[in-house]
Amino acid sequence: MLSLDKSRIPASKEDAARKIDYTVLRPTDTIEQMLMHARNADKLGFRSIVVPPFIVASVKEIVKIPVSTVISFPLGYNSLDVKIEEVRQAHGLGADEVDVVLNISAMKSRSWDYVEKEVKAIAELARSLGLTSKFIIETSYLSREEIEKASKIIAGSGGDYIKTNTGFGSRGVSLEDVIIIRKAVGSGVGIKAAGGIRTALQAILLWGIGADILGTSSALEIYNEYEETLKYIRGSLIE
Amino acid sequence: MLSLDKSRIPASKEDAARKIDYTVLRPTDTIEQMLMHARNADKLGFRSIVVPPFIVASVKEIVKIPVSTVISFPLGYNSLDVKIEEVRQAHGLGADEVDVVLNISAMKSRSWDYVEKEVKAIAELARSLGLTSKFIIETSYLSREEIEKASKIIAGSGGDYIKTNTGFGSRGVSLEDVIIIRKAVGSGVGIKAAGGIRTALQAILLWGIGADILGTSSALEIYNEYEETLKYIRGSLIE
Amino acid sequence: MLSLDKSRIPASKEDAARKIDYTVLRPTDTIEQMLMHARNADKLGFRSIVVPPFIVASVKEIVKIPVSTVISFPLGYNSLDVKIEEVRQAHGLGADEVDVVLNISAMKSRSWDYVEKEVKAIAELARSLGLTSKFIIETSYLSREEIEKASKIIAGSGGDYIKTNTGFGSRGVSLEDVIIIRKAVGSGVGIKAAGGIRTALQAILLWGIGADILGTSSALEIYNEYEETLKYIRGSLIE
Amino acid sequence: MLSLDKSRIPASKEDAARKIDYTVLRPTDTIEQMLMHARNADKLGFRSIVVPPFIVASVKEIVKIPVSTVISFPLGYNSLDVKIEEVRQAHGLGADEVDVVLNISAMKSRSWDYVEKEVKAIAELARSLGLTSKFIIETSYLSREEIEKASKIIAGSGGDYIKTNTGFGSRGVSLEDVIIIRKAVGSGVGIKAAGGIRTALQAILLWGIGADILGTSSALEIYNEYEETLKYIRGSLIE
Repeated sequence: MLSLDKSRIPASKEDAARKIDYTVLRPTDTIEQMLMHARNADKLGFRSIVVPPFIVASVKEIVKIPVSTVISFPLGYNSLDVKIEEVRQAHGLGADEVDVVLNISAMKSRSWDYVEKEVKAIAELARSLGLTSKFIIETSYLSREEIEKASKIIAGSGGDYIKTNTGFGSRGVSLEDVIIIRKAVGSGVGIKAAGGIRTALQAILLWGIGADILGTSSALEIYNEYEETLKYIRGSLIE
Repeated sequence: MLSLDKSRIPASKEDAARKIDYTVLRPTDTIEQMLMHARNADKLGFRSIVVPPFIVASVKEIVKIPVSTVISFPLGYNSLDVKIEEVRQAHGLGADEVDVVLNISAMKSRSWDYVEKEVKAIAELARSLGLTSKFIIETSYLSREEIEKASKIIAGSGGDYIKTNTGFGSRGVSLEDVIIIRKAVGSGVGIKAAGGIRTALQAILLWGIGADILGTSSALEIYNEYEETLKYIRGSLIE
Repeated sequence: MLSLDKSRIPASKEDAARKIDYTVLRPTDTIEQMLMHARNADKLGFRSIVVPPFIVASVKEIVKIPVSTVISFPLGYNSLDVKIEEVRQAHGLGADEVDVVLNISAMKSRSWDYVEKEVKAIAELARSLGLTSKFIIETSYLSREEIEKASKIIAGSGGDYIKTNTGFGSRGVSLEDVIIIRKAVGSGVGIKAAGGIRTALQAILLWGIGADILGTSSALEIYNEYEETLKYIRGSLIE
Repeated sequence: MLSLDKSRIPASKEDAARKIDYTVLRPTDTIEQMLMHARNADKLGFRSIVVPPFIVASVKEIVKIPVSTVISFPLGYNSLDVKIEEVRQAHGLGADEVDVVLNISAMKSRSWDYVEKEVKAIAELARSLGLTSKFIIETSYLSREEIEKASKIIAGSGGDYIKTNTGFGSRGVSLEDVIIIRKAVGSGVGIKAAGGIRTALQAILLWGIGADILGTSSALEIYNEYEETLKYIRGSLIE
């Protein structure tokens, strides 16, 4: 019998929204579509709205919720100097949070010193600018050992969140990813599960198993079906 | 009966190599693999080696052929200021050429002024730094009209090459793409076909129909099968 | 300069329709959607309507154009006895043509005797029942040599058409596929290009280079844009 | 806190193997590769070996474990008469179990009578022939309501197992799928989770949450890492 940690699972759709980054990162969305999504996210009180860097200033003007943007997204192989400049400019444009893709090639090369240097420099800069930092490890390309190692580096180098996936890798987040990360780092750092989250039931399982916040392009759909789904699993999964 | 323009098609594998950008952009390749590819490309005299920004300096040290890198790759939605900074830093690290992804969202929004401003600023900067500029339009997301419009903007704003695809869109380059672009811009600007090119026969068709250079991760395979493939089509496709 | 064989290219959308199998093979289409497509295809005079076996009888009742269906689709690994039974039942339900997937595993195993036996048995049965037979080789999984070998077997064993792809392999048809098949078999057997054909320009190139008929789920879109596309390429590709 | 039902989770790799159908359904595997997999599965005592219909007799000759094969795989849109003939011939060739794809189009059309008739006819035939029957609903194309409805029909019409996915749909199995099916049907029918299962941790979660057996092409990898993974989660997920 599976039972989830009830205390971790939002009790209403409004509570759920406060734990979801409403994500708008499709390169083919028009500017008008992106702004429409930002207004939706703001109206319903989502945790933040995640948009591409070029549109941060326009979004910031029309929302009250925090604005997140992405750094070296989704492949992560810009130089550290460029990543730092990306963070600075994101801040200048009004971003409140940055979702930074780590250098995957460095991780696959076991160049953990490189990874640590990257996280430390960016986490420190983010802190000094008042930005929340999330570091994307892209679990779809990593072994369990690599997920553990990268997670520990982020936890030990001042990152605010370990984020699992970009949504542009070979698969989205799995429950396994969250279990592995949580076992590796304990409770000292946040976990943002993202990539392929499309239903409220997926969201509930991810929260119940240990994710703190979620990122999803299906934020609105999940919001709308959330309370019905809660009822659906009450008495069986949630005791 | 199809007949290709014989004069456009390289007559030997060495000539073919001089029209191919040997591409190494998988985020999961290790640093050692990337350097190994760079040495291969250099030894066989490929037109250039295309690598991620973070490894440009290391590659530059070990090759004589030009080094290309990518800007705002593959989604293209960094701000213009960040793109400019990316180009500057690429130059500082030793890059000779930049493959820049245009803002796809701006193209889908028909914000052609935005696109033109982006191309002009970057093409001008590239020229002033002595860099060859290629602008990626990602045809897989565009209608024929959008491909034509974007191509004309690049041709009219000082870009050196129109590049068709990133390899990370919904499909690779098609012969159609090259036909459409060539019809739209005439001979005043180069065309780099890229994305999904895996065989020598594909390469020959793309050159024969109007592409000037190709970008491919299968550069070595194409080099090795090139001359046998030339023989295969002689007398039928090439008159 | 590319020039296509003008005589092979339909001169009007009506002529184009007569060379296109309007294809309806998505497993998630509803029955009503399939019937609606069949009525569309019939009204516009497409070469045939291709539907799943379970709906052949219902479609046959409402159309005048030939009805095609698929055999061992799309993986091709039913036993020969089952394939023969599938053909018999297709005929019993009213099908006029069968698109049969060859045993890919046998081709990859170089068990060409197996492949030849399969083609001969099915081609003979089809002929005796008055059915047109098309044999799908699924080029996306084959080397050039395997494409050549399979094509020669079909041409030499009584098949009416060599069909390139299912649309469920790792890629759709390429111009290369048609070139390779035509070089291998000459003009003694038909070529049906299928898989990933979405635009009129693709269709024109495939016909111009040697395909006799096409199969596509975008039949209606291609029909609608056909004549505008013909104008578009006149004077450049078609002399 | 997540805790799984310990009693459902195999305690050793040998026990795990007895709950896994070792699956060999890639159309591009050679005959020799398929036979080699069959020998592996047999030697390690997997629950069964799942192979394409055309090779059932050859596999049956060399293994002692049960042989499963697939019916109307993976699209499910053969006519009921053909499906019945496929089952008969599978039995004649020596198959012990059949994994039958239901008519997805019928499910999307809410033609539940059709679906019920299909399940009943095949389940009854299978029983009379001594075959175990598994019915694949392909959850990747279904809504929650459709999953529930299809599952209840299978449970009420004599099917032995509800199988979640083919591995050729738009995604593999999710924990959600198993939760939804189990809630819908209680314990009266078996659940076979299949599609995209690649690691021992995934396997453990699927069993722990309610799956009875699994189907996977990564059977050997899961077997090899199974006991290390059990240790990994002991004390946290399994109490």
